[in-house]
Amino acid sequence: MKKIFTLLFLASAISFAQKADEKQLKKVYSTSLTNGQSYAWLDHLSNKIGGRLSGSANAAKAVQYTKAELEALGLDKVWLQEVMVPKWERGKAEEAYFMSGGTKTTVPICALGGSVATKTGGIEAEVIEVQGLQDLKALGKEKIQGKIVFYNRPMQADLISTFEAYGGCVDQRYGGAKEALKYGAIGVVVRSMNLRLDDYPHTGSMGYEDVAVADRIPAAAISTNGAEILSKQLKKDPKTKFGFTMHCTQYEDVLSHNVIGEITGSEFPNEIIIVGGHLDSWDLGDGSHDDGAGVVQSMEVLRLIKETGYTPKRTIRVVLFMNEENGLRGGRKYAEVAKEKGEKHVFALESDAGGFTPRGFSFDCSAGNFAQVESWKPLFKPYLIHYFEKGGSGADIGPLKDDQIVLAGLRPDSQRYFDHHHAENDTFDAVNKRELELGAATMTSLVYLFDKYGTVKEKKIKG
Amino acid sequence: MKKIFTLLFLASAISFAQKADEKQLKKVYSTSLTNGQSYAWLDHLSNKIGGRLSGSANAAKAVQYTKAELEALGLDKVWLQEVMVPKWERGKAEEAYFMSGGTKTTVPICALGGSVATKTGGIEAEVIEVQGLQDLKALGKEKIQGKIVFYNRPMQADLISTFEAYGGCVDQRYGGAKEALKYGAIGVVVRSMNLRLDDYPHTGSMGYEDVAVADRIPAAAISTNGAEILSKQLKKDPKTKFGFTMHCTQYEDVLSHNVIGEITGSEFPNEIIIVGGHLDSWDLGDGSHDDGAGVVQSMEVLRLIKETGYTPKRTIRVVLFMNEENGLRGGRKYAEVAKEKGEKHVFALESDAGGFTPRGFSFDCSAGNFAQVESWKPLFKPYLIHYFEKGGSGADIGPLKDDQIVLAGLRPDSQRYFDHHHAENDTFDAVNKRELELGAATMTSLVYLFDKYGTVKEKKIKG
Repeated sequence: MKKIFTLLFLASAISFAQKADEKQLKKVYSTSLTNGQSYAWLDHLSNKIGGRLSGSANAAKAVQYTKAELEALGLDKVWLQEVMVPKWERGKAEEAYFMSGGTKTTVPICALGGSVATKTGGIEAEVIEVQGLQDLKALGKEKIQGKIVFYNRPMQADLISTFEAYGGCVDQRYGGAKEALKYGAIGVVVRSMNLRLDDYPHTGSMGYEDVAVADRIPAAAISTNGAEILSKQLKKDPKTKFGFTMHCTQYEDVLSHNVIGEITGSEFPNEIIIVGGHLDSWDLGDGSHDDGAGVVQSMEVLRLIKETGYTPKRTIRVVLFMNEENGLRGGRKYAEVAKEKGEKHVFALESDAGGFTPRGFSFDCSAGNFAQVESWKPLFKPYLIHYFEKGGSGADIGPLKDDQIVLAGLRPDSQRYFDHHHAENDTFDAVNKRELELGAATMTSLVYLFDKYGTVKEKKIKG
Repeated sequence: MKKIFTLLFLASAISFAQKADEKQLKKVYSTSLTNGQSYAWLDHLSNKIGGRLSGSANAAKAVQYTKAELEALGLDKVWLQEVMVPKWERGKAEEAYFMSGGTKTTVPICALGGSVATKTGGIEAEVIEVQGLQDLKALGKEKIQGKIVFYNRPMQADLISTFEAYGGCVDQRYGGAKEALKYGAIGVVVRSMNLRLDDYPHTGSMGYEDVAVADRIPAAAISTNGAEILSKQLKKDPKTKFGFTMHCTQYEDVLSHNVIGEITGSEFPNEIIIVGGHLDSWDLGDGSHDDGAGVVQSMEVLRLIKETGYTPKRTIRVVLFMNEENGLRGGRKYAEVAKEKGEKHVFALESDAGGFTPRGFSFDCSAGNFAQVESWKPLFKPYLIHYFEKGGSGADIGPLKDDQIVLAGLRPDSQRYFDHHHAENDTFDAVNKRELELGAATMTSLVYLFDKYGTVKEKKIKG
């Protein structure tokens, strides 16, 4: 008889907890959609500040603005964390053309982030089109020497995840110059990482690694339409010349900051949950999707926790990382300081995949923790949040990885992300208010559940 | 032993069928995304033809264009089905303002579809703001007589489905004039059915029902920003006057057409599956989302079936319905003719919720058929299609409803739909190519499964 009462008690306790969770999620979504702050913050970041490349005056403004806004929320602590970041400037607008039979056709390009400038007056040479890094070896020095290498492998359109398509192409952008200079190329031009055919060149990071500055060659992105016409032109006239001028400068590293705010936990203040996005962006647009959205959604998580009257057991921190785009210095610094201080991070969530309708999360965690997450799926169903899969999380939170932490990334609908990514049209008007707010509510809901139920502790395997 | 072999045979047959289905869906999605036709068709419909209000020259052009395109696909039959439709014209652009203390402020309005014109030179009167039809009775004739009724109940922002929010407001638009004239109002202005604050007025159908033409009062939609400032103004000065001018004309019904094409079934030609959208649109934009998207996706279903080399067992028909927006004459006519001919429709699918990323389908069918649909869910998982719920289907296919047919509606992400619905910004540039193509592939996949496995026959309950 006592057993039955215990069972009944347990069953009603479970159902009571579930009802409380349903109620809290409803409050979170409702508050975000009817009384949200994320869209107004993004409006300021995008339209009053604009592009926020690491080391720029705008990046510094964004640090001050978000710090002040977090302070206005009445968090328990708000502070800046110093971090040295690279400083690269595009300089005046790039120019590019191709020339065949005396006819000059201009095409839209932009310098890749970190590229050297062309020599004064630009460079002009014949072009060799390839489908990827692997083609260079087969062509060899004699076919590449003195030419401009044109990487034209498009993103694979039949992949459902556009991030997967990006992953299958971005080696051309990141490593294209370093590989081509080994064969004597004098410059590279890379098809923009964009599934759509349009006229926007898309920038993004590239690296020379250990190549001496004097030996570096300039690297540009060409719009997808530009890539298509250049490729057609090369079929008509393989002797077509390509010319481009770029004015970029790499400076010494400068001081910048991660922006951090927290609500200190009421029961387990030493168990830290972080939620974040990156405050820096590329310089061409205003970085609304990448990653203004993640920044304001992360700030909104803490605001929604307070606004809905929830008292977190654990410490909930928002971290706005500096320099994700071209260095990851902010993410590395945060993890380094956390380690030095012996801080215990139990859950980290990043939003860095655009402000589109949220579909769910990707988790980098143990089987036990993933099983707990799966048990929460029914709570998210009314909000059409259905995607809970193992996978990557976010670049900035990656350095926190250990065998105990749960890392997660918000996964919004990805179809339009690369229409805007790193391009001039990554702007405020491309973000839908409700989609942004749904993302913030979805993040807040997951943070609430991890705060309330904690993570599953993993047994350490003896070494 | 024999039993075990039978079981093994059955298990391998099931697994073989599942593999074949997985393969077919993959082919369908891949073809739509890499070699699709839907986006080019939409480009033509939207940019070469434009808005296609029933009875207009553009609607007739759209009939001819889509018929010719279906013929070019090499279907087994393509034909036009005659249908008489209403013809209403907006006339020259509407004008509206409010006037207080000698200051005149213009606001964006548009006539609701079916409205009468204002008298020449327009009307001007005091305004009474209400939150819905139910408020009129309480106010009574003495407070409404001679005034303009301003319906200002906004769409409910905390509903996840924007269609649900629309459903909760649209009575003001459809029935607002008819209700207000009972109390002596001389005109109505309705807050646009739009969750976003912007400057676009959104049109849509309204009805006077049996009210004599002479007694009808003009009905306009005001943009959401316009509604906000008008409401604020009325709080400051309740004597504020509102004036507007509209030039609409209702003509006699004219002849138009549904456009129909089919692949005749190879095994069960008398079992008909239809897939469709509506060819007419409102006149302000070019009707890209509503419902150019549904039209080209439905055409694409038949093209993808042919292109992937699948031979349907049942007859697969595309039906492009005329006059969904302001009459539903096409949908009614199609069902009427089907009944006359004794045609047996087993499955009907409509796409009329925009060309956004597909999330799944809503089904109006028996429990047995819904259970079969649920068994197909795993096949859709790789494409992030997760929404399979009981509910409505589509307005045009509704008249086919009986106790055997399965009716379904494609359910794309709904967050941005009402940003564009029935407004000047329902244009081609607001449609993402991949999102449109994913919708076409999702529809084709469901049609394939219903064709291959058929519907579950329901036992008739004896009367």
